[in-house]
Amino acid sequence: MTRDLIAPSILSADFARLGEEVDQVLAAGADIVHFDVMDNHYVPNLTIGPLVCEALRKHGVEAPIDVHLMVKPVDRIIPDFAAAGASYITFHPEASEHIDRSLQLIRDQGCKSGLVFNPATPLSYLDYVMDKVDMVLLMSVNPGFGGQSFIPATLDKLREARRRIDASGRDIRLEIDGGVKVDNIAEIKAAGADTFVSGSGIFGKGCAEDPNRYDTIIGQMREALAGVER
Amino acid sequence: MTRDLIAPSILSADFARLGEEVDQVLAAGADIVHFDVMDNHYVPNLTIGPLVCEALRKHGVEAPIDVHLMVKPVDRIIPDFAAAGASYITFHPEASEHIDRSLQLIRDQGCKSGLVFNPATPLSYLDYVMDKVDMVLLMSVNPGFGGQSFIPATLDKLREARRRIDASGRDIRLEIDGGVKVDNIAEIKAAGADTFVSGSGIFGKGCAEDPNRYDTIIGQMREALAGVER
Amino acid sequence: MTRDLIAPSILSADFARLGEEVDQVLAAGADIVHFDVMDNHYVPNLTIGPLVCEALRKHGVEAPIDVHLMVKPVDRIIPDFAAAGASYITFHPEASEHIDRSLQLIRDQGCKSGLVFNPATPLSYLDYVMDKVDMVLLMSVNPGFGGQSFIPATLDKLREARRRIDASGRDIRLEIDGGVKVDNIAEIKAAGADTFVSGSGIFGKGCAEDPNRYDTIIGQMREALAGVER
Amino acid sequence: MTRDLIAPSILSADFARLGEEVDQVLAAGADIVHFDVMDNHYVPNLTIGPLVCEALRKHGVEAPIDVHLMVKPVDRIIPDFAAAGASYITFHPEASEHIDRSLQLIRDQGCKSGLVFNPATPLSYLDYVMDKVDMVLLMSVNPGFGGQSFIPATLDKLREARRRIDASGRDIRLEIDGGVKVDNIAEIKAAGADTFVSGSGIFGKGCAEDPNRYDTIIGQMREALAGVER
Amino acid sequence: MTRDLIAPSILSADFARLGEEVDQVLAAGADIVHFDVMDNHYVPNLTIGPLVCEALRKHGVEAPIDVHLMVKPVDRIIPDFAAAGASYITFHPEASEHIDRSLQLIRDQGCKSGLVFNPATPLSYLDYVMDKVDMVLLMSVNPGFGGQSFIPATLDKLREARRRIDASGRDIRLEIDGGVKVDNIAEIKAAGADTFVSGSGIFGKGCAEDPNRYDTIIGQMREALAGVER
Amino acid sequence: MTRDLIAPSILSADFARLGEEVDQVLAAGADIVHFDVMDNHYVPNLTIGPLVCEALRKHGVEAPIDVHLMVKPVDRIIPDFAAAGASYITFHPEASEHIDRSLQLIRDQGCKSGLVFNPATPLSYLDYVMDKVDMVLLMSVNPGFGGQSFIPATLDKLREARRRIDASGRDIRLEIDGGVKVDNIAEIKAAGADTFVSGSGIFGKGCAEDPNRYDTIIGQMREALAGVER
Repeated sequence: MTRDLIAPSILSADFARLGEEVDQVLAAGADIVHFDVMDNHYVPNLTIGPLVCEALRKHGVEAPIDVHLMVKPVDRIIPDFAAAGASYITFHPEASEHIDRSLQLIRDQGCKSGLVFNPATPLSYLDYVMDKVDMVLLMSVNPGFGGQSFIPATLDKLREARRRIDASGRDIRLEIDGGVKVDNIAEIKAAGADTFVSGSGIFGKGCAEDPNRYDTIIGQMREALAGVER
Repeated sequence: MTRDLIAPSILSADFARLGEEVDQVLAAGADIVHFDVMDNHYVPNLTIGPLVCEALRKHGVEAPIDVHLMVKPVDRIIPDFAAAGASYITFHPEASEHIDRSLQLIRDQGCKSGLVFNPATPLSYLDYVMDKVDMVLLMSVNPGFGGQSFIPATLDKLREARRRIDASGRDIRLEIDGGVKVDNIAEIKAAGADTFVSGSGIFGKGCAEDPNRYDTIIGQMREALAGVER
Repeated sequence: MTRDLIAPSILSADFARLGEEVDQVLAAGADIVHFDVMDNHYVPNLTIGPLVCEALRKHGVEAPIDVHLMVKPVDRIIPDFAAAGASYITFHPEASEHIDRSLQLIRDQGCKSGLVFNPATPLSYLDYVMDKVDMVLLMSVNPGFGGQSFIPATLDKLREARRRIDASGRDIRLEIDGGVKVDNIAEIKAAGADTFVSGSGIFGKGCAEDPNRYDTIIGQMREALAGVER
Repeated sequence: MTRDLIAPSILSADFARLGEEVDQVLAAGADIVHFDVMDNHYVPNLTIGPLVCEALRKHGVEAPIDVHLMVKPVDRIIPDFAAAGASYITFHPEASEHIDRSLQLIRDQGCKSGLVFNPATPLSYLDYVMDKVDMVLLMSVNPGFGGQSFIPATLDKLREARRRIDASGRDIRLEIDGGVKVDNIAEIKAAGADTFVSGSGIFGKGCAEDPNRYDTIIGQMREALAGVER
Repeated sequence: MTRDLIAPSILSADFARLGEEVDQVLAAGADIVHFDVMDNHYVPNLTIGPLVCEALRKHGVEAPIDVHLMVKPVDRIIPDFAAAGASYITFHPEASEHIDRSLQLIRDQGCKSGLVFNPATPLSYLDYVMDKVDMVLLMSVNPGFGGQSFIPATLDKLREARRRIDASGRDIRLEIDGGVKVDNIAEIKAAGADTFVSGSGIFGKGCAEDPNRYDTIIGQMREALAGVER
Repeated sequence: MTRDLIAPSILSADFARLGEEVDQVLAAGADIVHFDVMDNHYVPNLTIGPLVCEALRKHGVEAPIDVHLMVKPVDRIIPDFAAAGASYITFHPEASEHIDRSLQLIRDQGCKSGLVFNPATPLSYLDYVMDKVDMVLLMSVNPGFGGQSFIPATLDKLREARRRIDASGRDIRLEIDGGVKVDNIAEIKAAGADTFVSGSGIFGKGCAEDPNRYDTIIGQMREALAGVER
């Protein structure tokens, strides 16, 4: 079975000492670094861009960096992130006039490509591009807006996405982002996800006081995932 | 005479250890932290947003943070930066349909306000808002594009901006950004500038080898400025 | 069986004495007030906004006000309409980047929420939000363009929407707007609609001469609907 | 000397009985009806469009209707307002790519044309179109945002606009909109204005109790204007 | 069986002597003239507009001209192309807010209408407009980007589009554009296409040296198509 | 004195035999080829793009090609036109967020650069870029709209532009476009223009019947210009 990947979102990390934060969370067992890019147009916030990604690589981060573009349009910035060391680049189908072309552009730049689905976005955008995606990311909250919890309808959507991926016979990650916590991660895996983004669930203010905090949380997640069939 | 302020642009700092970089450059004598925000729409790049500003404040930075918005439109993100600890917020007049309102919004949020002028933008946008700006920022390169040097026509523009500021009798900073170096900073001050942004001129790769590098550069700038009449 | 609702569109009323017009049409048996908002961007016309809605409430209108947003984007104006007394707020899925979030925003503001489908828009936007809509509105003409008659393909679409609503087991209104008249309303109900918008079909110049005109028309509609199975 | 015109803004009237409100304010001595059109794009509000203008004409309003477009772009809606009975149509220069053409289009439709200046907008947009404007409207608040008072810098701007109009030797109205009240209207006239928009200053809730309220206010304005030199 | 149509794209012709080029390719057996319109917004290129179409008609071209709009939005330019002599006008569903209305507009102007599907665009846009399209065009490359070859997933999409067309019982052309060559045209027809666009495959620099070149290529295509069942 | 240049606009030529048309008009004494690019966004028309420019070069045209971009934004298409053989590339200041940068980009691509002013656009955009323009183009009609005649206010604007150019001491062309005819060309030159665009004034249907028509018109223009002081 495909290995479960835990992907801390650095949006919740301390940006004053980001290199150190990322080192610690990887040392604690995280698999990939989730990197949320917002442009104040596609979503009402502006976060971090290619320079920050590049700084992580220069700092020595070797884990995959999984760049989720919440920007519109997407084509101009794709080569910038590829040059900055991104491993995955995913985008929303509504954010590109030419989805097939944007997926190809990501691969041409040497990265893995993916599509991200907002909670209400239908999966029909996958109909003719299953051979061009390495990852399908389902949002279980609305990206760019705070204070939301896991949207239950996502479980059915995960099952449908899993069905499509299995039917394709291809090696495609099924990632979930939004409201993932220790107490619902097993149910989410059972519905089909294999890659789990967690922001505030992992990074937190308490770390200074508890240097083992990342280990604890990630350990609890691994434990909850263990033995769950996908 | 108004004191000269040196404003390192953190775009050139190491984002993996940003807090430490900012501490060091302030310890070396820099006066304010210049914070360049790009949204991939007003300019073809995306940099850093309110979360990074907030992280610097939480890290303990007490110097003024001078946020230059290269975003369009501007009103939605102004309160975010005010809440994140910005001291100055400046924007481009072309980036707001309602310039007077955006200036008022910045002040209502408790920050100092300013307008930024691209190299070709006429100063007539200042005609009716001199009582609402705390800073006038002249770009001496085109923001968001790399590899440019100081545009000479900016010197005349500085003189015209200085004339307007002096005629207003108000306490308004005249800042310059783009291609400022040790060997042209005196001439720039003589044309009227009192606040000097420098990015790659200050931050740089060499620092690890030369722990006093920031002191050296900032010291050279101070020396070049000394004795120059504005 | 769900009660049939007749919803006169006030776009066809006399705006010089709107309060009186609405009072009369409600007295004549109309159930809800349909309120068409156009912004000259999503559709090529500009009609009425929150101030007019608020005036109806202040005037004493107590019937539900059913606000159909033909605007893009939608989030900024939703709280304005909620504050102005809207009961339902519906919008086009193409007009929001974050459909699920906009639906939630409407409900958070204390209103009932809905999606509107242009004649060619597929119903797949409903796939993952059936638990977040209180109304589905199918356009049987193209909104914002004059002089059109009922588009026949809407009957099949009504049947498909009815099937989805019934399958959900939820209490969701199925509204139809465009070319609804006494002589086709029975067929439209039979295809699944339960809420019937009518503009020029109800309001008209003749009312001054015939004070009972609204009663007559609405009575004819009720008669045509009676006994039709949905 | 040009006659002073008082122009109540119907945005502050009661939209449930708009015809009656407009009749009353005209009977009380108002000269022209000021009609504020907002599209939720150029300004963050949406108000009223051509249908409401047409209803006033059908209701019998014969006074000039002065349509202030706070919309962007403007060309598509100009013929709609001309057909709906507008007398003046004014727009913001930033809202048209082709200002000269939009002014010509207004005149070709049989209306009087004008440009509107936001508080910070320079008057240089008038440089080459003085022969194509019948009205210059200076905003003394930021349009579309509530709760503002008269911006003092507008007085100097009025003097500069008056100078340009007098130098042209043409018959061009100089209108002011925003925070105009009985106690500052004389000073505003002295600075050059000849047409005075007033919204909440004229229309108000108290009218039902005091049927002469409009007469009182407009009488006070006329009194304040009397004897002031422009 | 419906006749196969060969549609040379004039984007690959010599624009200095376009009339002659089109005459020659039609004389060589081409059926219709494919006319690619790009606006530098919907796609990153700008090609030719109504004036060039009109010039072909004035030159004497009588064959159908098949205008593929790669522009967004589409409604304003549709009447221009109808007046310029277009026979078919097709557009991308993502490029119109009001797809049904745009299709009706094309027919109201006396032309045949169609929808174009980018490689990743789902066919669900056809769900409720089969009675309003005369042509379905599937892109087998991403329009507006150079150097691409036929996308294999298009074959399945052709089969699905063919199934929808046959189920409708209507006379609707199924056109294919992108990477069509002599050696894959049979397979493309077998998947359901009946109209074959070819640009660089037909027009070419070699013509001056080989005056029969167009005849040769088109003859080879006809030969490859002969006997293939759709 | 600078030589007068006559610049026929190929928009009025026959696009079915464009190479021949351009050859003839150059043979008749025209100096440069004026190339009007419209994108259906900045102006309501779509004309011709880089492919047509390239075809003229391949056809053998050696005269300067003067590309007037009526597109927005401009940066993406500038390198395309440079590669297609443009000599001059001019754009509207309102169409670029970064005017100085766009001017530099044109020169970096090996072309001459210029700014175009709509009839109402103030000349203040020239304040800080006189060292970066090779041409100033004043529109004497509104670009992209038909049926207009020469706007008289342009004569004053020409004088002001001439004053700015002479004051700069630089070699900058002053071009005029719109309504230029044999009977007003002398007055236009006297006001300061040195480069004269003419479309329908030169190209026309009559040429087939009168093979010397271009010679006649251009000869008349030259005659009208002779002896006029600028």
